[in-house]
Amino acid sequence: MSFFTFIEILGTIAFAISGIRLASAKQFDWFGAYVVGFTTAIGGGTLRDLMLSLTPFWMLDPSYLVMTAFAMILVMFMGRLLIRLNNTFYLFDAIGLGLFTVVGVEKTLGEGFPLWVAIIMGMITGAAGGILRDIMINEVPLIFRKEIYALACVIGGVAFGICDYIGVSTSANEVITSLVVIAVRYIAVKYELKLPVLK
Amino acid sequence: MSFFTFIEILGTIAFAISGIRLASAKQFDWFGAYVVGFTTAIGGGTLRDLMLSLTPFWMLDPSYLVMTAFAMILVMFMGRLLIRLNNTFYLFDAIGLGLFTVVGVEKTLGEGFPLWVAIIMGMITGAAGGILRDIMINEVPLIFRKEIYALACVIGGVAFGICDYIGVSTSANEVITSLVVIAVRYIAVKYELKLPVLK
Amino acid sequence: MSFFTFIEILGTIAFAISGIRLASAKQFDWFGAYVVGFTTAIGGGTLRDLMLSLTPFWMLDPSYLVMTAFAMILVMFMGRLLIRLNNTFYLFDAIGLGLFTVVGVEKTLGEGFPLWVAIIMGMITGAAGGILRDIMINEVPLIFRKEIYALACVIGGVAFGICDYIGVSTSANEVITSLVVIAVRYIAVKYELKLPVLK
Repeated sequence: MSFFTFIEILGTIAFAISGIRLASAKQFDWFGAYVVGFTTAIGGGTLRDLMLSLTPFWMLDPSYLVMTAFAMILVMFMGRLLIRLNNTFYLFDAIGLGLFTVVGVEKTLGEGFPLWVAIIMGMITGAAGGILRDIMINEVPLIFRKEIYALACVIGGVAFGICDYIGVSTSANEVITSLVVIAVRYIAVKYELKLPVLK
Repeated sequence: MSFFTFIEILGTIAFAISGIRLASAKQFDWFGAYVVGFTTAIGGGTLRDLMLSLTPFWMLDPSYLVMTAFAMILVMFMGRLLIRLNNTFYLFDAIGLGLFTVVGVEKTLGEGFPLWVAIIMGMITGAAGGILRDIMINEVPLIFRKEIYALACVIGGVAFGICDYIGVSTSANEVITSLVVIAVRYIAVKYELKLPVLK
Repeated sequence: MSFFTFIEILGTIAFAISGIRLASAKQFDWFGAYVVGFTTAIGGGTLRDLMLSLTPFWMLDPSYLVMTAFAMILVMFMGRLLIRLNNTFYLFDAIGLGLFTVVGVEKTLGEGFPLWVAIIMGMITGAAGGILRDIMINEVPLIFRKEIYALACVIGGVAFGICDYIGVSTSANEVITSLVVIAVRYIAVKYELKLPVLK
């Protein structure tokens, strides 16, 4: 298992956990919580793949179902631990966000689209799952009101474009872009940075 | 008209009626109620077809528009009767759920996907229309909180896989799978079986 | 720049403004407001293109991002003016609705679908962006409860079909269809015409 695969698993589980916890708080039964967790984890990439005219990635690999089941077991048996690990959890979520952004940007460029489309698809890959989660549990999407979230994906996408332009290798660029997203998210949460609201 | 076509019409009308009634209760005008009814009836299959890279089925056959119109007329002129028939209505809905599951499973296998994808697509075909309905009328999706619903589709999909594996003919399997879904739903409603909520 | 391009820009900006204003009223930050504004402007056409198995139109032309940015600047610096221009704003929205309907109808016919599919796609192009906007800000979709809106697109689509059948040239038909939609909307708002609610 490569380092990136390991990171992707961590990120997927973190996304699924956030969906399972919020759905359970809304009195969804465990099957509903599983569906919301799965949708949170794969929703962004699914929307991206549909727009790129590709088969949604999770239909080609059952391991995302297994990761969501693992997230479910964690919530069931380690609920108290997860609450205590809340800060670590934020970090996993940020790691997932960074990696999902990279995957979205690269997959879109690979289909021949220009960088600006790739940046948007990176953002959709990272942030749309959380929006779908909030729509399914009938809440106003959180990510547009709390600390910088979707914008972190855009900043990461721009960083990818700059590094690519100045000749950084793809594998180095993947690490840099992920780290940019993670750093923006980390700083935003630590200092509670929020974007202003329009009047 | 084959028996299956007859069943599909019944199920589509039952799904459309549920959308029209809930939208009307939310003060949607009759055109809005029609749109919600149509979306409830065709939403699951549309999502399935988009994920399978197929043209949504209702774009190839105007009869779903007609069935929704018929559902509308029923709600308009037979509202009181429909309320009295509430139990029959549940049965129609269960019949629709069973048949939609079969259609989703078979169409997905026909596109060359493995069984586990087909089971998920069976569930999406049966249950996603109701989720879209609840999102459009701004309610928390009901099907993840009341008696076993989406899970009935999954159980039906698994039954299909087992029957197929042991060599049951396709036409017999279609009937068996539908009956499994209907039976699970019937028992769940009769005994008010609910899945537990995670704490 | 052709007259139609000019009209399309006006309509896109009007749609984006409605999304930005409603999202800001819901305490979305400026980035969230931008995303909702963009979704309102391009959401209907995106859904149409996915159903037609086409690449979403905005992925082939970055100008929709620029128009949304322009809408944002207008809301930021001309908020008071926009409120005073509320009636003009309704007109822009109606113009956008008319043109979006024409684009949806023609694109669908161009893909070889029959008229009834084209009429539905015209309605989706015009009205689905507003529905997605309302879902994202967690409100019951407005367009199914206030003055005739989505139905105006359908009436426009039917007008397109009739004109086409009696041999009106395409360019004349585009103008006629747009004007029909705009007129229906104008009359509906002026006389507060609403469709009845089913009991």
